[in-house]
Amino acid sequence: MAMSPLAPVTFPDMPVIQGVTFAATAAGVRYKGRTDVMLALLAPGSAIAGVFTRSATRSASVLDCQAKIGGKPDGPAAILVNSGNSNAFTGKNGMKAVNALTAAVAAATGVSTDRVFTASTGVIGEPLPYERITAKLAELQSNQSAAAIADAARAIMTTDTFPKGACAAIHIGGKPVKIAGIAKGSGMIAPDMATMLVYIFTDAVIGQADLQTLVSDLNDKTFNCITVDSDTSTSDSLVMGATGASAVDVTGNAAFADALHEIMLELAHQVVRDGEGATKFVTVSVTGAVSNEDARKVALSIANSPLVKTAIAGQDANWGRVVMAVGKSGAQADRDRLSIRFGDITVAENGWRAPDYSEDATSAYMKNPELTIGVDMGIGDGQCTVWTCDLTHGYIDINADYRS
Amino acid sequence: MAMSPLAPVTFPDMPVIQGVTFAATAAGVRYKGRTDVMLALLAPGSAIAGVFTRSATRSASVLDCQAKIGGKPDGPAAILVNSGNSNAFTGKNGMKAVNALTAAVAAATGVSTDRVFTASTGVIGEPLPYERITAKLAELQSNQSAAAIADAARAIMTTDTFPKGACAAIHIGGKPVKIAGIAKGSGMIAPDMATMLVYIFTDAVIGQADLQTLVSDLNDKTFNCITVDSDTSTSDSLVMGATGASAVDVTGNAAFADALHEIMLELAHQVVRDGEGATKFVTVSVTGAVSNEDARKVALSIANSPLVKTAIAGQDANWGRVVMAVGKSGAQADRDRLSIRFGDITVAENGWRAPDYSEDATSAYMKNPELTIGVDMGIGDGQCTVWTCDLTHGYIDINADYRS
Repeated sequence: MAMSPLAPVTFPDMPVIQGVTFAATAAGVRYKGRTDVMLALLAPGSAIAGVFTRSATRSASVLDCQAKIGGKPDGPAAILVNSGNSNAFTGKNGMKAVNALTAAVAAATGVSTDRVFTASTGVIGEPLPYERITAKLAELQSNQSAAAIADAARAIMTTDTFPKGACAAIHIGGKPVKIAGIAKGSGMIAPDMATMLVYIFTDAVIGQADLQTLVSDLNDKTFNCITVDSDTSTSDSLVMGATGASAVDVTGNAAFADALHEIMLELAHQVVRDGEGATKFVTVSVTGAVSNEDARKVALSIANSPLVKTAIAGQDANWGRVVMAVGKSGAQADRDRLSIRFGDITVAENGWRAPDYSEDATSAYMKNPELTIGVDMGIGDGQCTVWTCDLTHGYIDINADYRS
Repeated sequence: MAMSPLAPVTFPDMPVIQGVTFAATAAGVRYKGRTDVMLALLAPGSAIAGVFTRSATRSASVLDCQAKIGGKPDGPAAILVNSGNSNAFTGKNGMKAVNALTAAVAAATGVSTDRVFTASTGVIGEPLPYERITAKLAELQSNQSAAAIADAARAIMTTDTFPKGACAAIHIGGKPVKIAGIAKGSGMIAPDMATMLVYIFTDAVIGQADLQTLVSDLNDKTFNCITVDSDTSTSDSLVMGATGASAVDVTGNAAFADALHEIMLELAHQVVRDGEGATKFVTVSVTGAVSNEDARKVALSIANSPLVKTAIAGQDANWGRVVMAVGKSGAQADRDRLSIRFGDITVAENGWRAPDYSEDATSAYMKNPELTIGVDMGIGDGQCTVWTCDLTHGYIDINADYRS
C-alpha cells in the first residue's frame, strides 16, 4: 500500500534507552514476507504503567495486562506484541493463548509471567496461532538489541503505511533523560482510549503510581483526542516502561511531563496522519462552550461526521455541514453567537455567513493538506481540541476488503 | 444520478385523499430543469400534527412550524416546501424568508399565516431566494389537483434517486378511510428525529392532540430507527394532516394506527433504500439487552459503524466488526453470552466463533441486497430494531462534491 501523503519525511533517529532492548521477527501469524512479532525486555525494577481500551468486548491480552499493571516492579519485565490477529472475541481460547505466550516468554527470558505484557492486533474472532509465536521466542531472546526499536515499530504495523516513532532527550539537573515511543494504528481509531498500540520507554526514575497518573492524564489530552472513524478497538493498549537507568528522578518534574506530552501528542498525530485513506490532517478546535465537556462533544461531533469528512476530502468549504454537526452534538448552542473559522478565515458568525466571506479564498485554503476548523460557541469558557482526517475512497477500499 | 439498486419497482398508485390538493412547479431555487416547489392545500378544519429535528441549529422553517403546530384547526391549511436550499443558518434572513413565504401563501390562497407550514431542504447557509418561490404562488394555487401527490413527491427531492410514497385504504365500521404519504431524504439521515421531509395525509376524523400523540409514538418506531450516516439534519420535518372528509372517526382505532405505522415504516425504509451510495438494505435487530435503551445503543452503534458499513459494502462477513461495535456502544455486555447472526446463520456464540461456522455459507449470504444482522446480548429482555445501508464509494462521490 502506498505511504500516506501525510506521513513524516523519515522515522526519527531514536536514542537508546538504557535498560530496554528489542527484537522483531517474522512468525507468519498471518502476513507473509514481513515481521509480525516484537519482544521488548526491560531492566529489573522498571516501573510499568498502562492505559487500555474501555470496550466491553476487549481482548484477552487487554484483560491480562489490566490485571498485571500496578503490580510490584520486582525483576525484569517483557512486552510481546504480534500483528495480524487480535486474539479478540476468541472465547476461552483467547486467555489460553495469552497464558501460553506469557509462559513461553517467561521460560525463554526468565521474566516472571506477572511482568509479561502482551498485545495482539489484527483480525477479530479468529484463533491466534500462538505456537507460531512461541516457536520464535528463543530467537527473539538471543537477538535483543538496544538499537532495534525501529524494527519493533515495523513489526506491530497492520494497515499502517509507515512506522510511527517519537523521542526526546532532555536534561534535568544537568543530567540527561531520554524518552522514546512507538505506535501503530490507522483504523478503528476513536476515543475512548488509546485505541491503538503504543509503547513508550524512558530511562528516568519514577514510581509506578506516579508514572500511571502521569500517563493517564496525558492520555486524555493526546490519544483520547484523536479519531479516524469513530470506531473503538477491542484490543489496543498504551504501555510505558521507566527503567530508572539514568538515575534521574523525574517524579513531579514539569520538563519531563512536557517532553512526554509532546511525544504522546506526536505519536497520536502520526496515527491520524496514517488514518486509513487520509489525505488531510484536520485540527478541530472548539472554544467558548459552556463546559469543556460540551466543547468535546462538539469537537467530536464535527470530527466524526461523515458529511464533514467527505466535504474535506472533496476540498469543499462546506461550513454548513459544520453547523449541522454542532447542532446534532447535544451540546448547548446559540445559533446567533456561533462563529466558524477555516484556518484564519471567518466563514460564519452571528448566525449567518460572514459578511466578507469569500468562496474563492476559502476554497483555496481547503487545498492545504493540513486544515484547522475553529468553532467558537460564544457562550462560555469550555474548550477542546481534537484531531482527525478526511473520509475518502481510500478508506472504503481498505475496509471493504481488509480480511481478504 | 442512477436510481438506487434498492429502489421499489414503481411509485405506488396513490389514492386521492378527499380534502387535500397539490401542485408543483419549477421555481429555479437552485436546480435547473426540474420542479423544486410544492404547495399542498388542506380543507378547513384539518388537524395538523408534526415532529421535527432536535438539532440545536435547526432552520427557521422548523422553528416556525414548531410554534404553529397545536394551534386551533380553524380554516384551511397549507404546506409549502422547496428543495435546493435549506434556509438553515441564514441568520435573521432565515425567518424573514419564512415570513415572506407564509404571507405570500396566505395572500394567494386565503389560508391564515398561522396555518401555513413551510419547509426547505438543500444547501445550508446560503440565502434563500424566496422571491423565486413567491413569484410562483399564483400558478401553484391555480394548478391545484387532488391527483398530483406524485408531482409533490418529486418536487421535494434533493440527492434522492427516486420519489418516495406509501398509501393504505382500510375500512373502519364498513366505511373507507385512506392514508397517503410522501417523503424525501437520502443523506444527513440519523436519529434523533424524522431527519428528512415527510408529509402524510388522511381523510380520517381525529383531533389534533390525538393525531400528534399517534404520530409521535409511531415516529419513535419508524423514522427514529433509521440511519444512513449518523448525521442529523437541521431542517427536516414530518407533518401529517387529517382532513376528516371521510367522516370516519379513527380516534383510538387500532386498525388506523396499524395502517399508519406501516406507511411510516415503508417511507422510512424507502429513505434508507435511497441512502446515498447504498447497495445494501440492512436490518439490525438486537434482543436480550438489559433494557430497550441499551438495545438501541447497540443497534445504532452497529448501524453507524463505518467499519461495519464498509464490510457490508465489500460483502465481507466480518462479524468481528460487529463485536467491536457492541463493545464500543456503552451498553452492558457479557462477551460470553453474546450471539451474532447474519440472516439465519449463527456466526458467533459463547464468546467465540460458532462451532459450525461456514465462511462460504456466510459469504454467500452477504451477496444478498437485503441483509439482517441479529445480535442477542443474552442478559435481559431489551430489544430494538433499526435499519441502515452500507457505506460505499458512491457516498464519497456524492458528498465530496455535493455543492458544486
